[in-house]
Amino acid sequence: MNPLPNQVELYLPEWIPDFLKDQPDFFQSSEGRMQLVLSLTDRQIEERTGGPFGAAVFELESGRLISVGVNRVVVTGCSTAHAEVMALSLAQKAVGTHDLGAEKLPEFQIVVNAQMCAMCLGAVIWSGVKEVCYAATSQEVEQITGFDEGPLPSNIEGVLRQRGIRLKEGIMVEESKRLLEKYVTTGGLVYNATRTHK
Amino acid sequence: MNPLPNQVELYLPEWIPDFLKDQPDFFQSSEGRMQLVLSLTDRQIEERTGGPFGAAVFELESGRLISVGVNRVVVTGCSTAHAEVMALSLAQKAVGTHDLGAEKLPEFQIVVNAQMCAMCLGAVIWSGVKEVCYAATSQEVEQITGFDEGPLPSNIEGVLRQRGIRLKEGIMVEESKRLLEKYVTTGGLVYNATRTHK
Repeated sequence: MNPLPNQVELYLPEWIPDFLKDQPDFFQSSEGRMQLVLSLTDRQIEERTGGPFGAAVFELESGRLISVGVNRVVVTGCSTAHAEVMALSLAQKAVGTHDLGAEKLPEFQIVVNAQMCAMCLGAVIWSGVKEVCYAATSQEVEQITGFDEGPLPSNIEGVLRQRGIRLKEGIMVEESKRLLEKYVTTGGLVYNATRTHK
Repeated sequence: MNPLPNQVELYLPEWIPDFLKDQPDFFQSSEGRMQLVLSLTDRQIEERTGGPFGAAVFELESGRLISVGVNRVVVTGCSTAHAEVMALSLAQKAVGTHDLGAEKLPEFQIVVNAQMCAMCLGAVIWSGVKEVCYAATSQEVEQITGFDEGPLPSNIEGVLRQRGIRLKEGIMVEESKRLLEKYVTTGGLVYNATRTHK
C-alpha cells in the first residue's frame, strides 16, 4: 500500500523565546506562576497563534520553570495540541522521561489559565505531575468563549486526589476571565468539532 | 532565562512500513478493519515497542486506511502518546487539518483494540471522527493488564452521540483480550503513574 505518515511534530510559536528572554528562572508564589501563564496567554491572543489558553510546568518546591505551552490546534493541524498537552510533553522532554512522578525527580506542578477539558484532565493524570493550579473554571470558559470542555467528571478534585494529585483553584480568576473575553471580542476563532459540524 | 524545549516529535516504530507493505489500501468490513488493528497490536507486543494498544483511522465509507498508531509513551518519553492520539494526529497530518469532521471531507472512523482511556475519549471527541469502534472494554483492560483507564463517564455511548459520534462495540473481543493477556504473560511493562507512585 501507499506509505502513511509516521511522525508528528508539535511546536510552539516563534515568539516564545522572545517572551521568555526577560523572565526569571524561578517563580516563588502561586500568583507569580499564574501571572506568567496569563502573560503567556495574553501574548498568544495578541499574536493570534492559537486558542486563548496557556500553561506552564514548574518544579513545585523550587518554582523553577520547566516548560511552557499554548494552544496550537489549528496552526499545527493537530486537535490534541492543547496548551496543557504542549506544556506537559515539553516538560517530559526537558526532564527526559514520560513520567514526571518518577521517584528520583522533584515534584512538578502544572499551572493553566483555565480548567482542563476532558482530554487534558486525562493528560494531566497520566503525566505524573503532583499539583494542578488553574484560574477560570470550565463553566466560565464555556460561558465566555463557547469552547466545549467535553465530558468532565463532577468531582474533579476527588478524581485527582485519588491519583495523588492536589488541586489549587481560584487564583487570579478575574484576570483570566478578562483574557478569555479579550479573545472573543477581538475576533478569536472558536473551532469546536461539535459546534461547527452538527 | 535558559532556553526551554519548544518542539515535540512523536514517531511510530521502525517496523511499521514492513508491517504495512503487505496490507491492502482498503478494508471493507468492520471485522477486516479490526483484524488489521489486532495484527498491528500483536506485532507491537512481539517487537516490544510500547504498550499493548493499536489503533487505525479509516475513511468510514470507502474503508481506505489513513493512518495507524501504537502506544509510544515510554519509548518517546511522552505520556500522551497513546495509540489513539498517534493514529488521530497522523490522520490529521495525512488529511491536512486538525478537524477530520470538516465539511468537505469524507467521514472518518477510528478503530481501536480496546476502549479509550479518559484522555483518549476526549481526544476522539476533539478529532472530528464520526465513528469509534473498539473491541475489549476498559473493565477488561483494567482486569487483564492493570492499566488505569482514568475517570470515564458512565454513559460513553451517550457522551459520544451528543457530539455526533457513533459507537460500535463487541467486534472481535475475545481475540483482543487474548492479545492483552499475551502482553502480560510475556512480561510487558505496566507503567501507570498512579500505580507506581502512590
